[in-house]
Amino acid sequence: MNDYQIEINLSSAKKQKPAFDSLEFGKNFTDHMFIMDYTQGRGWHDPRIIPYQPLKLDPSAMVFHYGQSVFEGLKAYLTKDQEVLMFRPYMNMERLNKSNTRLCIPAIDEELAVQALKKLISVDREWVPNVPGTSLYIRPFIISTEPYLGVASSKQFQFIIIMSPVGAYYKEGINPVKIAVQNEYVRAVKGGTGNAKTGGNYASSLKAQEVAEETGYSQVLWLDGKENKYVEEVGSMNIFFKINGEIVTPELNGSILEGVTRNSVIELIKHWNIPLSERRVSIDEIYEAHKRGELEEAFGTGTAAVISPIGEFFWNGEKLCINNGETGQVSKKLYDTLTGIQRGEIDDHFGWIVKVDEETPVISAI
Amino acid sequence: MNDYQIEINLSSAKKQKPAFDSLEFGKNFTDHMFIMDYTQGRGWHDPRIIPYQPLKLDPSAMVFHYGQSVFEGLKAYLTKDQEVLMFRPYMNMERLNKSNTRLCIPAIDEELAVQALKKLISVDREWVPNVPGTSLYIRPFIISTEPYLGVASSKQFQFIIIMSPVGAYYKEGINPVKIAVQNEYVRAVKGGTGNAKTGGNYASSLKAQEVAEETGYSQVLWLDGKENKYVEEVGSMNIFFKINGEIVTPELNGSILEGVTRNSVIELIKHWNIPLSERRVSIDEIYEAHKRGELEEAFGTGTAAVISPIGEFFWNGEKLCINNGETGQVSKKLYDTLTGIQRGEIDDHFGWIVKVDEETPVISAI
Ligand SMILES: Cc1ncc(COP(=O)(O)O)c(C=O)c1O
Ligand SMILES: Cc1ncc(COP(=O)(O)O)c(C=O)c1O
Repeated sequence: MNDYQIEINLSSAKKQKPAFDSLEFGKNFTDHMFIMDYTQGRGWHDPRIIPYQPLKLDPSAMVFHYGQSVFEGLKAYLTKDQEVLMFRPYMNMERLNKSNTRLCIPAIDEELAVQALKKLISVDREWVPNVPGTSLYIRPFIISTEPYLGVASSKQFQFIIIMSPVGAYYKEGINPVKIAVQNEYVRAVKGGTGNAKTGGNYASSLKAQEVAEETGYSQVLWLDGKENKYVEEVGSMNIFFKINGEIVTPELNGSILEGVTRNSVIELIKHWNIPLSERRVSIDEIYEAHKRGELEEAFGTGTAAVISPIGEFFWNGEKLCINNGETGQVSKKLYDTLTGIQRGEIDDHFGWIVKVDEETPVISAI
Repeated sequence: MNDYQIEINLSSAKKQKPAFDSLEFGKNFTDHMFIMDYTQGRGWHDPRIIPYQPLKLDPSAMVFHYGQSVFEGLKAYLTKDQEVLMFRPYMNMERLNKSNTRLCIPAIDEELAVQALKKLISVDREWVPNVPGTSLYIRPFIISTEPYLGVASSKQFQFIIIMSPVGAYYKEGINPVKIAVQNEYVRAVKGGTGNAKTGGNYASSLKAQEVAEETGYSQVLWLDGKENKYVEEVGSMNIFFKINGEIVTPELNGSILEGVTRNSVIELIKHWNIPLSERRVSIDEIYEAHKRGELEEAFGTGTAAVISPIGEFFWNGEKLCINNGETGQVSKKLYDTLTGIQRGEIDDHFGWIVKVDEETPVISAI
């Protein structure tokens, strides 16, 4: 392992921690953050851990105007033995770099990023919550900071990591969610930025999300932007169906995000020898399967919710109820297995877990 | 006119101004800025003019992650008589509110915004450059500032106006630019955010822009996202063609921006009784017209460049040279008329000009 020179500047005061048994998602942040700068000509430099603090940016900083930014989301878990485990952090950093390529942002060193994560979590170790169902949500992100008005790639960036102890993402927990199929608005299209994790994709999704919520649906199912016909993904989850015994999920087509959870689910399904296909899935096919009584399960996959069973689709004025609105067997097994591996309670055959605690020396310099 | 209570807090020191005869676009900012806050439940509040200064935002502020932001761009000009004129500011504020609707951002008071502009320009009047071809570029923008990680609409926003004295946007000035037609990447699609002025549209355009520049083209011409067939717009300009005596421009279809300059050009063309049609225009039609020798002119329209003649298209490996790479008659006439009206040298029959100088009292409070 390279010894990356990450300077650590500890906070002189600790914040009051929220009650870990009633955490809201994404509202509380730990005592420290990681930050690193990019300057054209110099590359990425000065990786450092500093007290959690506001960013000071010129009002002309490009991120405010032209949205050149990317982000990631992953989690760390406390085991019964008080070890802290991260789930597939290298895959997130690899995806961050894929997003970077699409958004013209200079690549980061993936190994440095994972080392930075380890150090940051070690420093804020007391923030990894110890209550069942909770975890430490980690948000790496990159923003364009050059003070310049003009549509061009920024010459300055900041790579930042912040962390938040979290409970369940959906109020419903592992209970099935209700999802509205979106016919009017489009999230992404082939040739666009759908397979990158960048702010604009989420900004454009808010309107449909708002409409869905007003009618009692917690999420939106997106269809493709060209034909408004093929199933893509849910707000912040990939989607899977169980149709007549086979697991089906939309193939990676350039406009959906390659989820880490999606990838892990596919590996598990294959490992269990359940038939699986990654292919185009039209909404009509789902509708027909439901009419024939063959749509046995549907679930979303994502870091925040892990597995989120879907109890109902709303499409074209019709409600499609799935598995009596109850959690299906495969959904349940996937949830139990994934969360088991993540918490170190089930053996990790796949090499997914990265431990935080190879004693990382903390060099303080306040 | 309403008397909006805009508090003014003047800067104690003035910045050194750049030389007005060698201004670069979007690099220098005036001494002051306008800012106003939105808080859910309270609405927009505390409109104020303050010294130009960095924004302090929590690293979890939503704009850094989910791109919920919108912006505008317009200009003010100094006349020979030392008057300061704005070009169609109400249309920009109306468009800002249209963008707000699409991005789930609460509407601003358009009249307040124009009054804020007047006051801000009055305060920084010395920054309106007095050299031919220069102007004061004005950038109103709104960002989501709530410190929260989760895909939802922000409950806090800031509306900010900054200003920058500028020269020509393209190095080429009024000389024709060379434009590459984009086949692979997509900027916007029907149902997306193409007709809103929001960061994500520009972020997604950077990659194609980079490729175009590497091959010697200064801008990209976008085709529609569904069929990759119909002409949409250029990087930050709408596009017009003159085909066999008729002016043709893509109709407003939901995925292109409704340019203020586009609208003004259409009014002028109609006023001059030149045949005009707003309709779908395929890239094949343009290609065929060029082959037949009927593509007489092409030009882009936008606040930054006003009218930008197009001297060459690159499409499918072929170079289409237009009007011998020279500025066409209609392009020239439009440029002269528009810039003449903007600078108060040609009578404004259309009611486009708004004067800054109905004495706005400056209440200083340092
Ligand atoms: C649009 C979108 N799709 C899918 C996912 C699921 O990806 P992952 O499993 O890596 O969290 C996410 C969340 O990260 C997302 O934002
Ligand atoms: C994508 C896009 N199209 C067109 C335009 C031209 O609009 P306007 O004439 O209002 O400047 C702009 C610039 O504002 C733009 O960013």
